[in-house]
Order: sequence, then C-alpha cells, then structure tokens
Amino acid sequence: MMRQFIRDRIAAKLSDVQSHSDAASLGTLTGEVAVTTDSFVVSPLFFPGGDIGSLAVHGTVNDLSMAGAKPLFLTLSLILEEGLPLETFDRIIDSIAIASANCDVKIVAGDTKVVPKGAADGIFINTTGVGVHETLHRMSATNIQCDDVLMVSGPIAQHGLAVLAARESIAFDPPPISDSAPLHHLASELVRSLGPDLRTMRDATRGGVAAVLHEWAEETSLAMRIEQSQIPITRESEGVCELLGLDPLMVANEGTFLACVAKDRAGEAMKILAAHAVRGTPSVIGKVRERQISPVLISRGLGGDQPLDEPIHAMLPRIC
Amino acid sequence: MMRQFIRDRIAAKLSDVQSHSDAASLGTLTGEVAVTTDSFVVSPLFFPGGDIGSLAVHGTVNDLSMAGAKPLFLTLSLILEEGLPLETFDRIIDSIAIASANCDVKIVAGDTKVVPKGAADGIFINTTGVGVHETLHRMSATNIQCDDVLMVSGPIAQHGLAVLAARESIAFDPPPISDSAPLHHLASELVRSLGPDLRTMRDATRGGVAAVLHEWAEETSLAMRIEQSQIPITRESEGVCELLGLDPLMVANEGTFLACVAKDRAGEAMKILAAHAVRGTPSVIGKVRERQISPVLISRGLGGDQPLDEPIHAMLPRIC
Repeated sequence: MMRQFIRDRIAAKLSDVQSHSDAASLGTLTGEVAVTTDSFVVSPLFFPGGDIGSLAVHGTVNDLSMAGAKPLFLTLSLILEEGLPLETFDRIIDSIAIASANCDVKIVAGDTKVVPKGAADGIFINTTGVGVHETLHRMSATNIQCDDVLMVSGPIAQHGLAVLAARESIAFDPPPISDSAPLHHLASELVRSLGPDLRTMRDATRGGVAAVLHEWAEETSLAMRIEQSQIPITRESEGVCELLGLDPLMVANEGTFLACVAKDRAGEAMKILAAHAVRGTPSVIGKVRERQISPVLISRGLGGDQPLDEPIHAMLPRIC
Repeated sequence: MMRQFIRDRIAAKLSDVQSHSDAASLGTLTGEVAVTTDSFVVSPLFFPGGDIGSLAVHGTVNDLSMAGAKPLFLTLSLILEEGLPLETFDRIIDSIAIASANCDVKIVAGDTKVVPKGAADGIFINTTGVGVHETLHRMSATNIQCDDVLMVSGPIAQHGLAVLAARESIAFDPPPISDSAPLHHLASELVRSLGPDLRTMRDATRGGVAAVLHEWAEETSLAMRIEQSQIPITRESEGVCELLGLDPLMVANEGTFLACVAKDRAGEAMKILAAHAVRGTPSVIGKVRERQISPVLISRGLGGDQPLDEPIHAMLPRIC
C-alpha cells in the first residue's frame, strides 16, 4: 500500500527519487561539500505567494546559497497526519516538483511516515540540501569589519505577514504576499564577483532582519547600525504591521536577505543586487560600527540612535 | 531564547553542529557520495533497548551502510511539541550524542521547530546521512541472480515487539528488547570482502523480513524462497508473536538485515556475519529461485511451499 502510494504520488512526480534503495548515490562531488537541513511546519499549508512545498524547497536552497554553495541535491522527508486530503497532498507534491525544477536541484532520496489523526497537524516536511562551495571564501560573521556596509535585497516582512493574514483569516486588500523565492542565482553572482569582500549573507527568516543583525553583532562584538528611512518595505506591509502592532524588522522573510560587504565594493554589490533582484529594490540600510553599549542600533530620524531589541521567536510561531 | 536553547541544550552536546551558519561545510569528499533521509515518529519515545534518539542515528547510519557507503555525517532536525518536558528532551539529545559517537558520525547541521501543544506528539526527529561509497560495486536488487543465497544477520522481530509492548504497556517477563544497533562495521566487512558477490543488503525495518523479500522479488522477477525452520528468532519473541497474533516475518527490526550473496561465497559471508555479529547468530534462511507463481515462498515443513503475503504497513504504525 505504502510502496504504491510513494511510487504513484511522489516518485512519479519527483523522478530522481530512488524509492527502492536505502541511500541515493550522488556520484563524485568536486569541491567542498555543504549541507543544511530544515523542517517546515508552516500553518496554514497554503498562503498567498507559496505553500509548505515550495517553501521547503526555497528555504533549504537559500540556506545553501547564503553559505556560498551551489545547491545540487535535496532529500525530502514527509510526516503525514492520517486524514490529510489526498488532493492537498498532491498539490503540495506538485509544488515541490515545480520549485525544485526552478531551483535546478534534484530530489534524490525520500521518506514518508504516517501518524494517527491528532499526532501531527496535516503535513510536516523536512528538506536537507547538499551543494558544493563555489569559491574558497567562506561566508561568516567573523569576516565582518568595522565600516562594512549592510544591505538588504528587497522589501522586508512580506512572508510573515502573508502567513499570519492567511492563518488568522484577516482580509487585507490587497492581501500580503509572501516573498518566498530561490536566491541561488543572485547569491552566486555576489559570491563570484565580490570574493572575500562579500563578508557574509543571511536570509532574514525567523526573527527577520533584527535577528540577523543581532547574530552578526554577537559574533563580531561590533555594532550593527541601521537607518529606519532606508529599510525597504511596501506601503501595504507597513500598514498591516501598524494595524497588527508588529515591528516589520522582526517579521520573517523567505526570499529576502542581508549582505555585509566591504565599503569599497558596496556600489558594485548594490548593482548586482539590483540587476538580479528577485522581487523589489535592494537598499543599503546601514553600517558596521565599533560597539558602544547596544549591539544593534536604529536611527529613527529624530532623537538619534536607539537600541533595536532582539526578537522573541514565540511571537510568530509556525511561520516556516 | 531559541538561540540560547539550541546553544545550551543541543550544540553543547553535539559539538560539530555549527549553530550560527546557514550550512555546514563538510570539506572535500573523496569517492562517490551517498545520501539518505529518515524521519522518526516512534511511540513511545523510550522502549527497552533504545529510544527515538538512538533509533534516529542507527536508522540513518544503517541505511547508508546497507547501500555500501561509509557513514560520515548526519544532519539533525527536531520538531518539538510545546510542553515536552525538558528532561525528556535532554535524555534524547544525550542518547543522540552517544549513538553518533558510537557510529563515528558527526552531526554537522541542525534545525529546531516548536509547534503548539496538540500539533505534534512530543518530538519528531529527522536525520539525513551523508557518506561515501567504499567500493565501485553498488548494492541493488537488480544484481540478484537465481541460486543466490538469502541470509539474515540475527534473530528477527525484536524491535517491533519491544515498541509494541512498551506502547501498549503489555508486561512480558522478560520484556522484548529492541535490536536497534549500528551495522556500519559489519556491512563494511561484507562489502570489502565480497565485492560484487554481495548482491545487495537491506535492513528489515518496516514490514520486516517479508517486506524486503517482496521488494527484491518485485525488482528481479525471481522468487525468494525461505525455510521457516531456518529463521532465527528467540523463544521469547516467538511466544510474544503467538500471543499477539503477529507473524514475526512482518515485524520490524532495527539492527538486523538481509543479505543476498552469490552461492559460492555464502560460507564466507556467514563467517563474516558470525564474527562481527551485532546481536545473536546469523542464519541462511533460503535461496533465490526461478519465479513460478508466487514472488515469495515459505516452506513451513509439512505441506511444501506456501506463498508469503506482503505485509500491510498500517498493521504496526509508529514503529520507527
């Protein structure tokens, strides 16, 4: 029964899954291998701009891309709740097939578990990605230096707002749309063009831009200082955040990332970001400074710099 | 909060997890790379002979081993239900740390998601394994030839019975104990000693020995014929199966596997199995024959060969 289900509804659509083998052979990999893993528990399963299937592909592809690795292979592991409608399942697998084709990654191994009703919520998806580093330079916050430039690849907060509005059935017009998208082409351009002057990159997922800045500050003992006026955000997202009392800097993104670049190459980096923009316009949002008291500072116009708090995760659960 | 939790309760014990990077670098891998993925949803979380943590390590290590690959790296992805007692969580992470050290694998990347109470059942674990093939020969049922010998590495049905007894709180004396164990050393010996004469191996997990034989029969269009009298099983397991009305050939194992070996090398294979036995005594259980009508046949002593049915998974849910 299970074998037939896997064959007909999964392997037939994801043709590289070797459903009858214990492990998939990837052949010889040239270069340093990178690996990353992510489980997806987003609720609801479908939201404007994406679904748990495309999200599970983009999220893991982006984690490899942000590390400077070219994504090559994904594994796919599903936990299904008994009673999940078959048409829902099929839509999700179709979405995974389309997204992985768009990302040029092969799904090479899989696993499916079914748990009784009430023991899971619909479907949980794990994707683990394997890629190879494109250069010898490694992205790391420890590369960050004082005076480096902080930039963001496009308008922020869209994914979190899209999921939240869909979950709580809040009718905005237009509804917020997730930025979920693969970043591998754009990241690859940056990595190959800038070399070590691209200090590090990070997709601003859980905890949003603020979480990334706090991580970088913690690892460097420097301060991240940003200008509120430079943060790209759509008028619609801003309105939704105001209405819901959310700080857009703490709302999750799924196709928007931060890059930290050496001062002298910031212009070049911005040109690449603009030329390969996945969605919306990139922006320089701030600079790395010597640490005084606060690890992350925001200039909100009047009144000078203020500390930007670290986000508390539990605020927005099951966003990815 | 989450970062501190991961740092203190996971990364501190699994020191190779790079908790602040999007992807882990594995360096250069020499040889053909193998990958496998598995999610673990076993209930209860602890059972005689193991727990969800050790199981998640052994299961994935064994999938690589059965494919003829040397396990090197694991990723670890956790889905936690809000309210899971911290001491339960810590015991599981400790168990993962011990098992991965025993298996000589490094846990290189991780992910943790928390879902509200009722949206998962305690903890679900995904492990994805990366290894390198030890030889150019690839394990595959398509290698199987008529007259090949079928062997099993030790007494069967122990894992399924241990989990079932623990879940249903059935008090057997002595209680059934899971065979959960890593097979990498034993598999490696077989692979390197026998070369292409080791046609294929498979750990007899979900669906037990019967499921493996049915898969092999389907992929070869040959018949797998076994002798009931040759199947190793403890007196205790046999008694429990009789009491519960279970066919031990369909009960899951987690450290016991089937090997199919060329007739001329069967003696050598059995010597290796006996010398490196993880638990109990190996046994030749049957032969590959030309297909007549039934894909899998069992000789039960009197009355000649009978067809052995394919197991229905749903019989024993959440066994791994």
